[in-house]
Amino acid sequence: MLINQIKQTELETIHEKTLYLLEHVGVDFEHPELLELYRKQGLRTEGNRVYFDKETVERALSTAPASFVMKTPFEELKIGEGGQAICSASGSRKILRDNKVYDPTPEDYVNIRKLDASSNMINLSSSPLTYIPAFPKERAEVIKGALTLKYSTHPVIMSCFGKTDAEETIQLARDFYDTDEGYYTIGVGNVISPMRYAKDDIEGQLAYTKRNLPVVIACCAIPGMTSPVTLGGTIVQNNAEVLAGVIMTQLVNPGAPVVYGNTTYVSNMRKAMPVSWGCEEAVFIQYAKAMADYYHIPCRTGGSLSMGKELDYQNGAETAMSLMTSLDVKADFIFHSFGEMDGLNVFSFEKYVLDEQIMAARKSVESIDIFSEEDMDLETISEVGPGGNYLAEEETILRYRTEIYYPELYSLENYADWERNGRVSVEQKAKERVEKRLREYTPPKFTAKQRAVLEKALEGFDL
Amino acid sequence: MLINQIKQTELETIHEKTLYLLEHVGVDFEHPELLELYRKQGLRTEGNRVYFDKETVERALSTAPASFVMKTPFEELKIGEGGQAICSASGSRKILRDNKVYDPTPEDYVNIRKLDASSNMINLSSSPLTYIPAFPKERAEVIKGALTLKYSTHPVIMSCFGKTDAEETIQLARDFYDTDEGYYTIGVGNVISPMRYAKDDIEGQLAYTKRNLPVVIACCAIPGMTSPVTLGGTIVQNNAEVLAGVIMTQLVNPGAPVVYGNTTYVSNMRKAMPVSWGCEEAVFIQYAKAMADYYHIPCRTGGSLSMGKELDYQNGAETAMSLMTSLDVKADFIFHSFGEMDGLNVFSFEKYVLDEQIMAARKSVESIDIFSEEDMDLETISEVGPGGNYLAEEETILRYRTEIYYPELYSLENYADWERNGRVSVEQKAKERVEKRLREYTPPKFTAKQRAVLEKALEGFDL
Repeated sequence: MLINQIKQTELETIHEKTLYLLEHVGVDFEHPELLELYRKQGLRTEGNRVYFDKETVERALSTAPASFVMKTPFEELKIGEGGQAICSASGSRKILRDNKVYDPTPEDYVNIRKLDASSNMINLSSSPLTYIPAFPKERAEVIKGALTLKYSTHPVIMSCFGKTDAEETIQLARDFYDTDEGYYTIGVGNVISPMRYAKDDIEGQLAYTKRNLPVVIACCAIPGMTSPVTLGGTIVQNNAEVLAGVIMTQLVNPGAPVVYGNTTYVSNMRKAMPVSWGCEEAVFIQYAKAMADYYHIPCRTGGSLSMGKELDYQNGAETAMSLMTSLDVKADFIFHSFGEMDGLNVFSFEKYVLDEQIMAARKSVESIDIFSEEDMDLETISEVGPGGNYLAEEETILRYRTEIYYPELYSLENYADWERNGRVSVEQKAKERVEKRLREYTPPKFTAKQRAVLEKALEGFDL
Repeated sequence: MLINQIKQTELETIHEKTLYLLEHVGVDFEHPELLELYRKQGLRTEGNRVYFDKETVERALSTAPASFVMKTPFEELKIGEGGQAICSASGSRKILRDNKVYDPTPEDYVNIRKLDASSNMINLSSSPLTYIPAFPKERAEVIKGALTLKYSTHPVIMSCFGKTDAEETIQLARDFYDTDEGYYTIGVGNVISPMRYAKDDIEGQLAYTKRNLPVVIACCAIPGMTSPVTLGGTIVQNNAEVLAGVIMTQLVNPGAPVVYGNTTYVSNMRKAMPVSWGCEEAVFIQYAKAMADYYHIPCRTGGSLSMGKELDYQNGAETAMSLMTSLDVKADFIFHSFGEMDGLNVFSFEKYVLDEQIMAARKSVESIDIFSEEDMDLETISEVGPGGNYLAEEETILRYRTEIYYPELYSLENYADWERNGRVSVEQKAKERVEKRLREYTPPKFTAKQRAVLEKALEGFDL
């Protein structure tokens, strides 16, 4: 859903207003060590507040890379300049099963990882956030990280919940991959709107930046509550917030990869709560990508976002609109791609595979070369001629399986056939697909050393 | 869902290939009078086949208007050059009610018209196509036309099902509006792929063109069956088909308004049947609009298309994707906007109002001036400052109702609140909304003469 064609002059306006905010309003960083570093680099500070001048902003932006390649012994993933990370669900505190929600179990966590492993679109797995009450709080991030490493070979987002969690999970990835070089994992950190970086968030993010690992800086404002109620005001505040984080990474470690992130929702102001989909969100996504392009850094946006409570019309419509917007703008990093609903609070296995089919449909047409002689195929059109039919043509027989996308979980028969075939719901088909995927899952093969690292991290948990 | 950014050279390629097909393969027109007119204008014909040379194509295109204004005593509607027709459901042979499908009754037909009348997005009502078994075949189109005129004041699409239906319903509109000037109604006609205009279709379309009334020429190919299985082949054949119809109108009556239409579906080749949504369809919509722009004529595309059987995830996702694509390309005429599913075969009242909310959300952000000083609102951002909140700000209180779209039928509360409030489904809310809209409907006021015209057309039907 591409709402506007954004003009270069608009981006310049946003950048100018952002410079004003960074220089005259400032950003809070609750971290004495970082404040000291800012002062040493000649920046003005007052308490926790830092004021970034234009020259500092430009200097910092000049060192942030336009793309980077994550590399593990198993897979490589380019992010930016054409490389696109499709990242799995992350954030759910409940699991939807048979129309009720439950606390996620360790088995649920493992099963989400198995879906990631068998998805032909996911290329980055997310370890943190999904809340598993059965895991002890102080070990939860390491356990989840180990399970993510164990059940899929995709590169992994490790924890960014503060210094300890970040350092321990980075260490886990380093031990598992047996490397201390390159970009072997990535962190996702937040700024607290309006314009405040809290101590834990800074420490989590710096754990990555100091080790020269990539980090995603994302704002997540709620218009009317933590950002202006207006779209323009929210966009400019968001840009200042994220840019401040980008600058932070470059002042700490010039050249460290950083992703410009945006998770800003809209809000239900009647209840003073955030809601995870509105058309406003599509506007925020579009401007986020445009600003990231303006700064020549990769952009992260959201994926399959919906406030839906069931696998209903609302859920499909909202998910399609948010997912398509991220694909329309060619976001370099799509987070929360599959399976989330209720404003990221609920995860549904069935939704995961239904969401996948939307993206697969879209991807199926992105790569077609409409203008090749073969595709245009005037010869067949001429042969068939007016009033003819193409059913028996060689091209049709050769290409019908590959040329037209076939979403197996969606109903494509007519109503009468659907009734005759037992009125099987799309949800039921999704359920069967999930069961099949989990049944057919085969674990990756690891070295003895890799197994040992995982066993140590998972000690006491038979998972 | 905007898949490609189409380049001018691509459009030129499609146009060149189209010229080749029109000149060397030809198009069948099953209409001796029209064939005679083609011959008189120097075109080569063979049997029913006509070959259009480049000069004829260019001459015809030079007279087709880029926009036109429909005008009735009640409303005006510009189509093209910024004017956008949002047209209601049309085509359903069944009504979905309480999870079962039924034959539409006369009362259903009237109720669809009442929803059209009370929609704040519909600006063009469609009279034909919905199949009401209770109406006698020979009078059905006139009865439906009269009911459409009676229950809403929007301009009306009249029948185009052949000479008699077209002429009788045009006459009805003429009598009702008491005018024979301007563009007081419009017809929608089809070409039969591949490249054949059947007698009834031609006669229906010419009934409009000869009276200088606008007509929409739409192709509706099924790739692999009535057009090449490839996207490129289907696009070029579709363009040749529609262009031949556009040329027909201009050779018969130069300057008569004509709309470039596209309804091409994809196909379920495993069952050799058309299916009404796939991402391929979004590609066809995008190229249709681009070619119509290339020819400087308005473009018609589809609206809320889905193969869904229930108001489920599939239905919402497919509808959002097709509707957003038509909005992304700024289609001048969106047909089947609300309420249709099962590949246009089924109409759902609940879907009508759920579809409306998607479009309303989109429209709500299209008009916002993000870059006004007021919207950017640096003053409030500066006042609130880092760590503050916007809840009590004057701007928030003044604007929260208008700034952020509130889709009343979708669930925006969190899961716990939704449970506490009785787990009301989105479908249930839609049902209540439909009942309210029908209950609160107030009929338009007509003159005695207008009432007399309607009474005569509806004789024997107490509707």
